[in-house]
Amino acid sequence: MSDKAPTPQNWPDLSGRIIDDETGRRHVLPIRVYFEDTDAGGIAYHASYIRWCERGRTDFLRLLGTDARRLIDGSASVEPAAFVVRRMNCDFIRPTRMDDVLTVETRVKELGGASVTLIQTVIGPDGRRVFEAEVTVVLVAVSGKPLRLSTAIRSAFDGADAGKVLGSGAVRG
Amino acid sequence: MSDKAPTPQNWPDLSGRIIDDETGRRHVLPIRVYFEDTDAGGIAYHASYIRWCERGRTDFLRLLGTDARRLIDGSASVEPAAFVVRRMNCDFIRPTRMDDVLTVETRVKELGGASVTLIQTVIGPDGRRVFEAEVTVVLVAVSGKPLRLSTAIRSAFDGADAGKVLGSGAVRG
Amino acid sequence: MSDKAPTPQNWPDLSGRIIDDETGRRHVLPIRVYFEDTDAGGIAYHASYIRWCERGRTDFLRLLGTDARRLIDGSASVEPAAFVVRRMNCDFIRPTRMDDVLTVETRVKELGGASVTLIQTVIGPDGRRVFEAEVTVVLVAVSGKPLRLSTAIRSAFDGADAGKVLGSGAVRG
Amino acid sequence: MSDKAPTPQNWPDLSGRIIDDETGRRHVLPIRVYFEDTDAGGIAYHASYIRWCERGRTDFLRLLGTDARRLIDGSASVEPAAFVVRRMNCDFIRPTRMDDVLTVETRVKELGGASVTLIQTVIGPDGRRVFEAEVTVVLVAVSGKPLRLSTAIRSAFDGADAGKVLGSGAVRG
Repeated sequence: MSDKAPTPQNWPDLSGRIIDDETGRRHVLPIRVYFEDTDAGGIAYHASYIRWCERGRTDFLRLLGTDARRLIDGSASVEPAAFVVRRMNCDFIRPTRMDDVLTVETRVKELGGASVTLIQTVIGPDGRRVFEAEVTVVLVAVSGKPLRLSTAIRSAFDGADAGKVLGSGAVRG
Repeated sequence: MSDKAPTPQNWPDLSGRIIDDETGRRHVLPIRVYFEDTDAGGIAYHASYIRWCERGRTDFLRLLGTDARRLIDGSASVEPAAFVVRRMNCDFIRPTRMDDVLTVETRVKELGGASVTLIQTVIGPDGRRVFEAEVTVVLVAVSGKPLRLSTAIRSAFDGADAGKVLGSGAVRG
Repeated sequence: MSDKAPTPQNWPDLSGRIIDDETGRRHVLPIRVYFEDTDAGGIAYHASYIRWCERGRTDFLRLLGTDARRLIDGSASVEPAAFVVRRMNCDFIRPTRMDDVLTVETRVKELGGASVTLIQTVIGPDGRRVFEAEVTVVLVAVSGKPLRLSTAIRSAFDGADAGKVLGSGAVRG
Repeated sequence: MSDKAPTPQNWPDLSGRIIDDETGRRHVLPIRVYFEDTDAGGIAYHASYIRWCERGRTDFLRLLGTDARRLIDGSASVEPAAFVVRRMNCDFIRPTRMDDVLTVETRVKELGGASVTLIQTVIGPDGRRVFEAEVTVVLVAVSGKPLRLSTAIRSAFDGADAGKVLGSGAVRG
């Protein structure tokens, strides 16, 4: 690839953005509906929304200063871990179609000892909600044991201290 | 394909079975976990359960005497239609892994005017529940308008009259 | 969504870019590897590359001035049509992993009467090729009949006249 | 689950069958086209065939006496390993649709030192080919190093000695 060609650094919005305005703090990620996301009914297949929400959560975590691979490798923590979905209550409100541009909005609703409950809303091209889910994820070690959220991760989700999650020792809590 | 080769007729259990015993009437469908269903965490990806449940619902409908393509074509009804997921409340109870054989069990919980609420349970290799969802699907015409469930479809879901769904005029209700 | 929130117009690179420099004219699209794209081997599942290439082709077409939905609706043409994959020769060169940022590059190799042959290369985070495919797609009407590529579509793929594909009557060729 | 309910043992054809008749030795696996496999064009999405072929290869290996998880765990060998796709030349011959029952046929074309080349054919409901691919897979250790195929795996693919792959020490070759 020539050095004139785009590099990852050239796609500044690839992980979406964290926005904090009068409607609250949230992560937003644009999603394009491709053929892979649709079905023979001519609309986006319902499980596609589940995948899109996972992209939103992953990129929210990334912008908070940690990412899934670092957790899995254990390089962001004392032991390898991952956020695992425990519960997902989904409303499929309106259909979406091939070529639509959607936005996944992810907000923190509640922090538990080892869990985070999020509200994830998919917004359609006309600005109306097309999907909404309440999602509870749990931080789980490779062994299967739930792990307490570190102070740093809690602060990051709270918006209090987002920049420091990966600081030395931060994730150990 | 030589006439010694298998034909669709040779795979009698491909659509699962409807069972009606002391634990109630339900459709059961075996599912194998393949690489496509897993993720880098080493377990089945959470959206895979959503796809498996849709397979269970589709094959339940098929064994009730109608199938998705006939509905979409309109050949089973006066106008093209499809069952669309409106709500899905999911509990991810235990992880499953590559090569596991699971069973998707689908039961009718409640029939509404245009909707059916189902309980779908995924059973792991050791017989324990690994996933459970309450799913509400709505019969929707191509135009987007919800359609009243015909008497025949209602009877089929109820188990009262499963064999007659495709009988002449049956789906028109 | 408040009017301060991002809108589709705020994500300028969502469809990638067409680049025309000393290494040739091509479409580039960034791809993030998410959990949905990986498998229990810890790497991106091989069919994910096939999906990513389809995203690249779809967005290349979009930036050329037409898009898949307009073709399917027939609104960009005299009859509904779609580009369908006829042949795909794929080399899986190196594994990629969760959280990697990849680039899909799509170049026109050859234009046939009803077909386009493309070279699609996926570039890894270190700038090396991880996947390459030669892909032949055919423009097919809803009836299944291959359609001759219009002069406008041919010019757009050639780079001669990319801006005019959707001009009045252009796609009719 | 009551003991009257189906168990994995009750689905004898879940992994397909190995057939050896006048048209040659091959693995056959039935595939149902579900909504998840289709796209807004109304036909099976092209990457679905790639997933179906992987199911065929995985179940062929399983019936040969080894399976993907044992390889990955290292329990079938001296070190964890997996078959990885290196090359795939695909012809998409005819479209298939929702509810179709297809058959994936997998034959060994050639055995290399660390690789196996297979011909995989998808047969449509009318017995005609709808897809065909030549696929080369390589046995790769977790470290990324290609591994020589053991004598036992070679014999199993050849059909000479299928039952003994997992016998003591067999996979070490």
